[in-house]
Amino acid sequence: MRRIKLIVAYDGTNYCGWQVQPNGITVQEVLNQALSDLFAKKIACIGASRTDAGVHALGNVAVFDTDARMPADRIAFALNTRLPADIRIQGSSEVPPDFHPRFTATVKTYEYRILNRTFADPTRRLNSYFWYGPLDVDAMRQAASYLVGTHDFKSFATAKPEVTDTVRTIYETSLEKEDDLIRFRITGNGFLYNMVRIITGTLLEVGKGDYPPEKVKEILAAKDRKTAGATARPEGLTLVQIRYPEWDFE
Amino acid sequence: MRRIKLIVAYDGTNYCGWQVQPNGITVQEVLNQALSDLFAKKIACIGASRTDAGVHALGNVAVFDTDARMPADRIAFALNTRLPADIRIQGSSEVPPDFHPRFTATVKTYEYRILNRTFADPTRRLNSYFWYGPLDVDAMRQAASYLVGTHDFKSFATAKPEVTDTVRTIYETSLEKEDDLIRFRITGNGFLYNMVRIITGTLLEVGKGDYPPEKVKEILAAKDRKTAGATARPEGLTLVQIRYPEWDFE
Repeated sequence: MRRIKLIVAYDGTNYCGWQVQPNGITVQEVLNQALSDLFAKKIACIGASRTDAGVHALGNVAVFDTDARMPADRIAFALNTRLPADIRIQGSSEVPPDFHPRFTATVKTYEYRILNRTFADPTRRLNSYFWYGPLDVDAMRQAASYLVGTHDFKSFATAKPEVTDTVRTIYETSLEKEDDLIRFRITGNGFLYNMVRIITGTLLEVGKGDYPPEKVKEILAAKDRKTAGATARPEGLTLVQIRYPEWDFE
Repeated sequence: MRRIKLIVAYDGTNYCGWQVQPNGITVQEVLNQALSDLFAKKIACIGASRTDAGVHALGNVAVFDTDARMPADRIAFALNTRLPADIRIQGSSEVPPDFHPRFTATVKTYEYRILNRTFADPTRRLNSYFWYGPLDVDAMRQAASYLVGTHDFKSFATAKPEVTDTVRTIYETSLEKEDDLIRFRITGNGFLYNMVRIITGTLLEVGKGDYPPEKVKEILAAKDRKTAGATARPEGLTLVQIRYPEWDFE
């Protein structure tokens, strides 16, 4: 058996998120179906990131096992002919049999796009959050910088009973404004449920002048979800990349 | 009666183009409905550009007449609350009563987006054309430059019996590549039916190395549609802006 790693990109608009669930169609379910069709055998892949409904990905990661002989790098092309246009494999490669996309130490990068202009842009509505009022990008950038480092991010997470360790490490944050588009990027070793969206909601409060940038430090210290801003809408969020620094297989 | 000019943006994915027609929903039809609702009176707007099914706009222009007292600049906001998310008015202003968006001399700018990478990007599939093979952008830029000036563009148009004058003036063309995205922009005093898409299809042949750049000169001279490239797909095309240089009302 070989273990194959897939880089998976999707437009999350029409999916109930990544993970298979009874109440709606998911990216994982559609991918499992395409894999099972391609290899004429029931296959269930394991995903790295369980993105929420409406959230996009350029580089989610999934693995599956197969004894088929197809060259690993051709699997991406073969799968794409069986997938709908809103899911596209970006690459396929063989990994060691003990490689697990979630239990392996990872570095993930997310991007949240904020469209800041007077009127909404219908051509970008599905992959950005529109805000018409003024935003102080410098203040947002300063607020985001307080997140870098190893912190307890309990205030920036929707509680899940099975998650007890809420300490994560953020390596880098950036906010770049080009014309009417603000791109907030955040890279870390892991993210709690809704963490990037709650951070973004908090940065929006800072940008509007409702919170001073330093409030982010207080929110971190409070370890209380109620102290942070609202959960920003899903359509602005994209999982850009997942790296596995300890693996040398690519 | 006042004449009101609207700047209209839309994602053309789910529309059968701009113009009202019996066989499908159009942008103009939805806009007429919103105008009629807002002013409690049947209103039919006149559009500047009859974009095709699947083509997008950031700055199409429409006018309508009203005797309502609403301040002209508030109409955009009021209309947007009655429009679906894939149509958004970008501004509204009063224009002289004899202003006609089509019969007035205009300068139109279109953009065609080509996504040039190994695998399709599902998050950008609705507003770009994907091509996986190498493209020589310098050759495409050179080919496009031959279009600048006043020419008979008969070779670059789908024939329409009612159109006899196929001479148009192109003021400027540009091709910019940033990462995996090529943006072809073309500005002129008017465009024939499918003209930008046929020009783009021809530039793609040049980019692939199937036509030398100079062939564009031969195609212009031939005045024969069969000499040009294929009509490029609609989703890559956006009507960016229409200017009315002789009017001074804004």
